[in-house]
Amino acid sequence: MSKANIRERVRYAAGEVVLYPGVPAPGEPLYRVVEGLVRIQYVDEEGNALTLRFVHPGEFFGEEALAGLERDHFAETMVESELEVVPIPELGPEDYPALTAQLVTALKRGYRQIERLVTQRLKNRVAAALLELLNTPLADRDEEGRPLVRLTHDDLAAAVGSVRETVTKIVGELAREGCIQSGYGKITLLDLEGLRKLAAKKE
Amino acid sequence: MSKANIRERVRYAAGEVVLYPGVPAPGEPLYRVVEGLVRIQYVDEEGNALTLRFVHPGEFFGEEALAGLERDHFAETMVESELEVVPIPELGPEDYPALTAQLVTALKRGYRQIERLVTQRLKNRVAAALLELLNTPLADRDEEGRPLVRLTHDDLAAAVGSVRETVTKIVGELAREGCIQSGYGKITLLDLEGLRKLAAKKE
Repeated sequence: MSKANIRERVRYAAGEVVLYPGVPAPGEPLYRVVEGLVRIQYVDEEGNALTLRFVHPGEFFGEEALAGLERDHFAETMVESELEVVPIPELGPEDYPALTAQLVTALKRGYRQIERLVTQRLKNRVAAALLELLNTPLADRDEEGRPLVRLTHDDLAAAVGSVRETVTKIVGELAREGCIQSGYGKITLLDLEGLRKLAAKKE
Repeated sequence: MSKANIRERVRYAAGEVVLYPGVPAPGEPLYRVVEGLVRIQYVDEEGNALTLRFVHPGEFFGEEALAGLERDHFAETMVESELEVVPIPELGPEDYPALTAQLVTALKRGYRQIERLVTQRLKNRVAAALLELLNTPLADRDEEGRPLVRLTHDDLAAAVGSVRETVTKIVGELAREGCIQSGYGKITLLDLEGLRKLAAKKE
């Protein structure tokens, strides 16, 4: 795609808001994550956050501008990120199949989240969220090579549609069962198989 | 769109399954609702149904075929419906903007449902679902001209992510409060303003 070379790229620090709720401004572009991680997050009047999706490198966000639809969420970087600015009039026929496939994937993930909210207990959703985040820049390894995810209990609560107090209780339960180990701003995954079983469980 | 004239159209009776869970077959088409109403529905192992979205006339479904993604839901007609079969290789550059806008809309509706599941009580979700269904072929008027929605408590439970027993209790509550009147396979909406207030409520 020849135009890609001349598209503007912007760097954001961790925790910066890229998009705010509201009607997309005329000419508002689409964004593509080149490097980093962005979360699409709804925040209610009491300040409770709910992560609607994580946007990984190669993926787009700000898609409301494509349909002129009001956005009721924020887009925020979770780590230092590089974003490509994609003006919508520049989208060519060659861009649409990939864009469409990504929207279908986002929709499928949204439906998966709805299914989890309706059919799974919080503990199972926490296990699923931790495993999903292993495939993001939030993942790391500790000194012993064990996988960990760098996030706060607040972040985890938003990812599973709960509040920090409740999630902290669940994290304690999972730690007592030997599945994870919780540290300051990070959670180490000790028993991946156990977490996978929990993540798959319906009740 | 010149090709539209030669695309195959298929009629389905109410309650027919158009798509099953599974990996889309090679060459599987996209479907567009010409007339009627389709629901995209996840069914768990115990047979509990969860409606992920309603597909209205003019809208597409079967979008997993665009991305080769496994489908874990059914697509089922809710009333007699006419569907247009859209082979994916026939999608031209002129089709993509509309298709993209629809996927963005579907995604936004999915996110709205996630927000409702996390932030609203069942009673408020029931009010929201009844109001949404007023814009579908399930809507009708009674002899006195009052708006009603033709659906069972099972359908309503699937639409709000609950089970029939619980929804029947909520329907009784809303009826006692004068918001609705429940009949065999239909619910009459008596107090639209009251339902709108409930639908908007977070807590």
